[in-house]
Amino acid sequence: MSDLPTKATIYEVGPREGFQFEKSFIPTERKIELVKALTETGVKDIEVTSFVHPEWVPQMADAEAFSAGLPEVSGVSYSCLYLNTKGFDRAVKTGRYHFDGALKLGASPAFIKKNTNKTIDETIATFDSWIDKYEEIGVAVEQATVNAAWGCNYQGDIPPEWVMSRISSIEQAINARGYKLKRLLLSDTMGWGNPVQTKRLLGAVRERWPDAEVRIHLHDTRGPGLANIIAALELGISHFDAAVAGLGGCPFAGHAAAAGNICTEDLVFMCEEMGIETGIDLEKLIECARLAEEVVGHSLPGKAMKGGSLAQYRHAHAAQ
Amino acid sequence: MSDLPTKATIYEVGPREGFQFEKSFIPTERKIELVKALTETGVKDIEVTSFVHPEWVPQMADAEAFSAGLPEVSGVSYSCLYLNTKGFDRAVKTGRYHFDGALKLGASPAFIKKNTNKTIDETIATFDSWIDKYEEIGVAVEQATVNAAWGCNYQGDIPPEWVMSRISSIEQAINARGYKLKRLLLSDTMGWGNPVQTKRLLGAVRERWPDAEVRIHLHDTRGPGLANIIAALELGISHFDAAVAGLGGCPFAGHAAAAGNICTEDLVFMCEEMGIETGIDLEKLIECARLAEEVVGHSLPGKAMKGGSLAQYRHAHAAQ
Repeated sequence: MSDLPTKATIYEVGPREGFQFEKSFIPTERKIELVKALTETGVKDIEVTSFVHPEWVPQMADAEAFSAGLPEVSGVSYSCLYLNTKGFDRAVKTGRYHFDGALKLGASPAFIKKNTNKTIDETIATFDSWIDKYEEIGVAVEQATVNAAWGCNYQGDIPPEWVMSRISSIEQAINARGYKLKRLLLSDTMGWGNPVQTKRLLGAVRERWPDAEVRIHLHDTRGPGLANIIAALELGISHFDAAVAGLGGCPFAGHAAAAGNICTEDLVFMCEEMGIETGIDLEKLIECARLAEEVVGHSLPGKAMKGGSLAQYRHAHAAQ
Repeated sequence: MSDLPTKATIYEVGPREGFQFEKSFIPTERKIELVKALTETGVKDIEVTSFVHPEWVPQMADAEAFSAGLPEVSGVSYSCLYLNTKGFDRAVKTGRYHFDGALKLGASPAFIKKNTNKTIDETIATFDSWIDKYEEIGVAVEQATVNAAWGCNYQGDIPPEWVMSRISSIEQAINARGYKLKRLLLSDTMGWGNPVQTKRLLGAVRERWPDAEVRIHLHDTRGPGLANIIAALELGISHFDAAVAGLGGCPFAGHAAAAGNICTEDLVFMCEEMGIETGIDLEKLIECARLAEEVVGHSLPGKAMKGGSLAQYRHAHAAQ
């Protein structure tokens, strides 16, 4: 493991992923309180909300008021989720968000159909209008985002070739408009991944697109989340989404307590202990994780916040 | 990762590790019910109780009655914990246990002192009488067990050289009585481990004792538990302790909800998905994990039991 990256970039997605699963409405100012605390940890990019129809996700009905209340912090940018152009327009209108200019295509035909009632080809047919949208706000279209890339509850196993084919479709659309594919964001949306498969999938992707920055978004629905991160790190991949306290839940698991995204402070703990710099203050992040439990009103699956960092024991020993 | 072992041996330690942290007394028959369910999963070795003074661990006061009630299942053996010869004698007397013939020495001087009020040399001085004890019951003394081998809340970081030195002290005592060191059991008692360190420690140990079977006992206090397993698997190590549902808690964490041992069903899920045979039926084990939550009366940290296995989705797809 001597050739691991020396630095990792961690994207905090807890507020967006986490809040949407909460049944009772969290007051807007409490949501903002958690985001504000996160901005003080060293995290540079926080995905904070979804612009979706309030009837689908009542928890996100306050997206505009919430956006207006986000603290302006130098060096910190906010991102958000949108599933259609209406949501995108709402997000743009707030003036608070960074847009990654991604074209999105699911790896699983069954999941795309279920989510959007479109086929893969019908989705690809929307790409040009998405590029128009991004161009209107001056954002370069250089990212391919593929979800359910490790497996799908509606489809079963997803062969790496399908993921490559989706990326390739996006690349063609991007190239046709004069852009170059520079970034890939691949998601294990339903927590199917294991380290061997992660290495196989990401190895194939890197071989095909050696110059693209690869970022992964893993759900830890069944336990191997951080083990999958090791598989990625061993390939030199160092851009990871994670959710403070393991916020997120899993709408596909059929169990209310199912684990969400990989947990940010556990990931930061592991990286920093391995000598991989994250630029994030673990102690402050652990405080955020405890605040997240308070804000949602129940315990969350993160472990480092309960086990505590090791600094306290090292300091105690050094002082003896 | 193509040179991973093809099989892993998993030792279930949940009943022993888990019950001792529970405040309210669990009826003996409920403890036996969980063990019985575990014997039906394919697990071959289950650590079920501790023979310690009932005043220290009231939960284990029923160790004799519990032992008498253990089901006899062909191919399944039970083991137990004892911290002194009195506990050992009680365990022997039940006639229900397999003894590994281990000499035990902590890696951390501070932890040994705290636990037993002995120095390292004083502990080594007890080895001969332990060998006598094992010989009385016809057990060969061929195992070195070292705890706090990754780090210690009372000592701080533990250099791999200390671990090697402890193993070496045990080896000398064993050799002096005509035995050979065949097995090593190393514990990350307080959940300090990360994958880089795991590889460094276990790599050094394997280089020094290439013929010894290495078994590891990891606590997942801060999240990288299964990532540490990957580091061990990559070295060809394939003997792992784990606790169903992640039972265990952490008496050192100062937080009642701190995570315990790595979770058996999460480990089985990961291994089987990677093509590493465990001989354990994941579906039955998940049922045991849910039973464990019932028996202790609160939720436990295991993830696969909440996320569910993938078989259901693969079958659903195959049937379409």
